[in-house]
Amino acid sequence: MSKNNSLLTTRHSLNTMLQNDLLLRALRGEVTERTPVWMMRQAGRYLPEYRVLREKYSFFERCQTPELACEITLQPVDIVGVDAAILFSDILVVPQAMGLEVQLIESKGPVLPDPIKTANDLNRVRVPDVNETLGYVFDAIRLIKQELNGRVPLIGFAGAPWTLLCYMVQGKGSKTFDEAKAFCYTEPELAHQLLQMITDTTIAYLKEQVKAGADTVQIFDSWGGLLGPDDFENLSLRYIRQIVTALKDTVPTIIFAKGAWHSLDNMAATGAQGLGIDWCIKPQMARQLAGNKVTLQGNFDPAKLLSPIPVIKKEVTAMLDAFGPGHHIANLGHGILPHVPVDHARAFVDTVKEYRHKI
Amino acid sequence: MSKNNSLLTTRHSLNTMLQNDLLLRALRGEVTERTPVWMMRQAGRYLPEYRVLREKYSFFERCQTPELACEITLQPVDIVGVDAAILFSDILVVPQAMGLEVQLIESKGPVLPDPIKTANDLNRVRVPDVNETLGYVFDAIRLIKQELNGRVPLIGFAGAPWTLLCYMVQGKGSKTFDEAKAFCYTEPELAHQLLQMITDTTIAYLKEQVKAGADTVQIFDSWGGLLGPDDFENLSLRYIRQIVTALKDTVPTIIFAKGAWHSLDNMAATGAQGLGIDWCIKPQMARQLAGNKVTLQGNFDPAKLLSPIPVIKKEVTAMLDAFGPGHHIANLGHGILPHVPVDHARAFVDTVKEYRHKI
Repeated sequence: MSKNNSLLTTRHSLNTMLQNDLLLRALRGEVTERTPVWMMRQAGRYLPEYRVLREKYSFFERCQTPELACEITLQPVDIVGVDAAILFSDILVVPQAMGLEVQLIESKGPVLPDPIKTANDLNRVRVPDVNETLGYVFDAIRLIKQELNGRVPLIGFAGAPWTLLCYMVQGKGSKTFDEAKAFCYTEPELAHQLLQMITDTTIAYLKEQVKAGADTVQIFDSWGGLLGPDDFENLSLRYIRQIVTALKDTVPTIIFAKGAWHSLDNMAATGAQGLGIDWCIKPQMARQLAGNKVTLQGNFDPAKLLSPIPVIKKEVTAMLDAFGPGHHIANLGHGILPHVPVDHARAFVDTVKEYRHKI
Repeated sequence: MSKNNSLLTTRHSLNTMLQNDLLLRALRGEVTERTPVWMMRQAGRYLPEYRVLREKYSFFERCQTPELACEITLQPVDIVGVDAAILFSDILVVPQAMGLEVQLIESKGPVLPDPIKTANDLNRVRVPDVNETLGYVFDAIRLIKQELNGRVPLIGFAGAPWTLLCYMVQGKGSKTFDEAKAFCYTEPELAHQLLQMITDTTIAYLKEQVKAGADTVQIFDSWGGLLGPDDFENLSLRYIRQIVTALKDTVPTIIFAKGAWHSLDNMAATGAQGLGIDWCIKPQMARQLAGNKVTLQGNFDPAKLLSPIPVIKKEVTAMLDAFGPGHHIANLGHGILPHVPVDHARAFVDTVKEYRHKI
């Protein structure tokens, strides 16, 4: 038996121990008894329990202390009853592990005070030993799996190389990431060198997340939608493809490239089991573009969780009607907003859990 | 002869006096000898000549003094040689005319210190007499037409009602405009009342722009792309449709709803002569969605103007190849970025002007 097969067998026996494996079965393409549901940024500021920890500990303390990361990861499972936990962390721990200083001050957004601008700057980044630099993540995953005790699966994650390059070059958040784009257009060789280094780090990082116990992994390409279709292929998808291929014998992968609806066909062709979509595309059209094999994840407008609860219920039902049975994981089309009332988030989750498709 | 016919005849005789009417002929669907070109925000910060005036005068001084607005409007015609002038102004002059305080501090973005939050707040806004409140715009247009002296057409413009509601409710710029959306979801009647008031004002405003001499008008729905397809129809397009219908016997209209690619078919069905598209959709797909009648405008990635000039030339040529002959106005997919070198902007314009389609 090859190493990969043995890994798959081990994972399979682990998964069979899950009391709720709806998410994993949906990713495998099974028509499940009901649609699984979770929410991007579900471990976050809308939860008063999260805000208590946020006042006491800095972002990196919360993220690097396995007990805190574990507590935060489990909060939405306990409080709103989602069908999956997602590791509490940030995509920028990878640039940090690669040697760049990253400041995460939540009111201000991320700042990388010494961004990559020249060939010389590239000498400051490396493909690190992920166990040395990101071991705290794997410790957190092991602890979370233990504390979850099979209740629901755990989602690991990483940023897409393009999205990480955006921050590593621009040095901070931006509406357009035009400095990052200008870097790619004027120094394409350097850009591809950096993207490959991020990709290599990410592959090692996600493989270790899986070894530690992640049941599936999501690749967040938050800024994929800033690129036109050709640039998306050249600067983003070709690297995501490497990651999906590297993980294909381990756990299912989900790609979420916000706004990159134009490449749903190419994303589906990577072999990823899940594709996240935002609320600006109708489920029918996403299905038409992505084909029939892949599981779609999404796509409730996060701002709609600010509607009155009866409106939320009506709109969630309409969304589930539109996706139809199977090949769907209910989620928001982007992260939950910080000022959403908890009972509105719960109404979203409960509506999905109570819904049954007419088959 | 009806009033409308006589207006059309007058306009026609005015247009025949234009030395360069490529833009208007492209909007009428004629296959022109070459593709017309202009750039959104072409009268703006990338021009040193603009920055000089910006240091001397506040935004509202520049905008409300016809001589200054005229000088700024003409700068890109003289300096980069675009095929159309677009009135220098801001979409937020309409909320201001409707009774809301608007502060435009360019480093900070727009601020409306007393936004609309309740039914009571709606009492503070009115559908104004546009000649009383926005007369300075029409004065500027008359002066610009005189100074242009028929060199190129003049584009008038207004913000789409949804985009203006975003600012009037949120009170400032936002990535998500979630407060504006929450207002629409929780107070739909108030939202529609406000949208109708903005629409009525905008119709009167654009009609007066046309009377003063605007040869075509563009409706900017900068935040249309934040709405899902159903919300876009309900909160944005139904009001844009009213505006297009109200103007249909005057001049051609162009709708630019950034990111709302999902509704290109419905936008084309309004009868607008032009549809702006951003760089995240391939020209072929936009054409497929929008149908064969409408003229498409766009769609160069503004960040690509930061590329070296040979790259700009190559990419602009590829864009023109992709659009094919006729029914196209070359433009950026969004406003020009402030730090684009002037010779890069000129390379964009010149490449379009030198290009000839193989027919």
